[in-house]
Amino acid sequence: MRYEELTIEGRNAVMEAFRSGKTIDKLFVQEGLQDGPVLSILREARKHDTIINRVKKERLDQMSETGRHQGVIAQAAAYEYAQVEDILNAAREKGEPPFLFLLDNIEDPHNLGAIIRTANLAGAHGVIIPKRRAAGLTAVVARTSAGALNYTPVAKVNNLSAAIEELKKEGLWFVCADMEGETMYNLDLRGPIGLVIGSEGEGVSRLVKEKCDFIASIPMKGDIDSLNASVAAGILGYEIVRQRLQVGK
Amino acid sequence: MRYEELTIEGRNAVMEAFRSGKTIDKLFVQEGLQDGPVLSILREARKHDTIINRVKKERLDQMSETGRHQGVIAQAAAYEYAQVEDILNAAREKGEPPFLFLLDNIEDPHNLGAIIRTANLAGAHGVIIPKRRAAGLTAVVARTSAGALNYTPVAKVNNLSAAIEELKKEGLWFVCADMEGETMYNLDLRGPIGLVIGSEGEGVSRLVKEKCDFIASIPMKGDIDSLNASVAAGILGYEIVRQRLQVGK
Repeated sequence: MRYEELTIEGRNAVMEAFRSGKTIDKLFVQEGLQDGPVLSILREARKHDTIINRVKKERLDQMSETGRHQGVIAQAAAYEYAQVEDILNAAREKGEPPFLFLLDNIEDPHNLGAIIRTANLAGAHGVIIPKRRAAGLTAVVARTSAGALNYTPVAKVNNLSAAIEELKKEGLWFVCADMEGETMYNLDLRGPIGLVIGSEGEGVSRLVKEKCDFIASIPMKGDIDSLNASVAAGILGYEIVRQRLQVGK
Repeated sequence: MRYEELTIEGRNAVMEAFRSGKTIDKLFVQEGLQDGPVLSILREARKHDTIINRVKKERLDQMSETGRHQGVIAQAAAYEYAQVEDILNAAREKGEPPFLFLLDNIEDPHNLGAIIRTANLAGAHGVIIPKRRAAGLTAVVARTSAGALNYTPVAKVNNLSAAIEELKKEGLWFVCADMEGETMYNLDLRGPIGLVIGSEGEGVSRLVKEKCDFIASIPMKGDIDSLNASVAAGILGYEIVRQRLQVGK
């Protein structure tokens, strides 16, 4: 677990943080803003005894890490990393076979945030990232996750290959995204599963790929090399959703 | 059609621009860079009689619109908008039923670029954007499209609803993404089709939605509101790909 101060920026992200029950220590709101979304945020802040500071736009611009605060910045205790066990427990509590995203070398915080957002909506129980060469849970990640970081646990492990080995003992299968794999529609992706997504340039590293049970590819017809990592994660993640729903013509 | 000077930034984007046959007027390369990708770009530049300028990093930083030039910036005639007719012709030449992406209110250039990239790889024949409230074909779009902007035609229309009406006369069906629609797996999305994607906040505008034949939703299990627009475009676009391939368990 890690604790640090975290800034949450933008109206949706701040509102979601309140709604999810996160403890917001301080709220900074731009002077003069009185519109509906801002009033809703202020109402939540009063309800939770959050300290409210009305400040000039310049002050918010200075504090902002994303450059897109929309007049609202909150300070909270940092997002805490979960343990892998917490993720498995979440699946158990819902009575669902575990569904995890594992990210190899995803260093871009926008991609990390977008993948956490997708994982949440696809009904995945958590996301696992390695300690090295991974984006941390910063304000940019929180913002691009559109609030999903408040709900979807993210665990950080020393070694992705070792984590996969451990999770195999829990009955999980692992599928890794790679252009040279079998077309995803031809694989059976039901049951307890971990989906491994690599970076756009390098893909999934060799050692991690060797641990995977399947290698799945997205059919590509175009003239360029690869999809954006977060788009690829969405397409593969939703192929798992489709197969879990056992539908499709 | 529109013409302006355009800067293309980053190694992949510049290399793709050369490969696609785009006319590059000038190439700016950071002094001292001699690695493989840079040498390949210089070779292409000589082959195409492009003017090569070795400049300091500071100069590139100044020229850069994206802040991520990787030591290479090219100047070219701007990306030209295609006509809708060009997109239909591209489908005809390939002997395929037309497959188009239509974007309503997508103002973020990163989303536009990522969607053009996905459209290319999904085998779509083109992208249609409206004149108003849409990102233009800027350097950021070119870069986030990862070169797809060189291959996938983008047409700009005065009015999206009117364009849909016209395309219906050509036999196209239109499916619009909306959370209140029918689950996408239950719809028949084969044949000549236009996929309409809206912005994250507002979705597809009412007038455009009314023109659509189907309203398709992505099943969502999570705690937050919506997927990133480019991820949603990828998931829906690839459901069309899957149905076109007529596969899936």
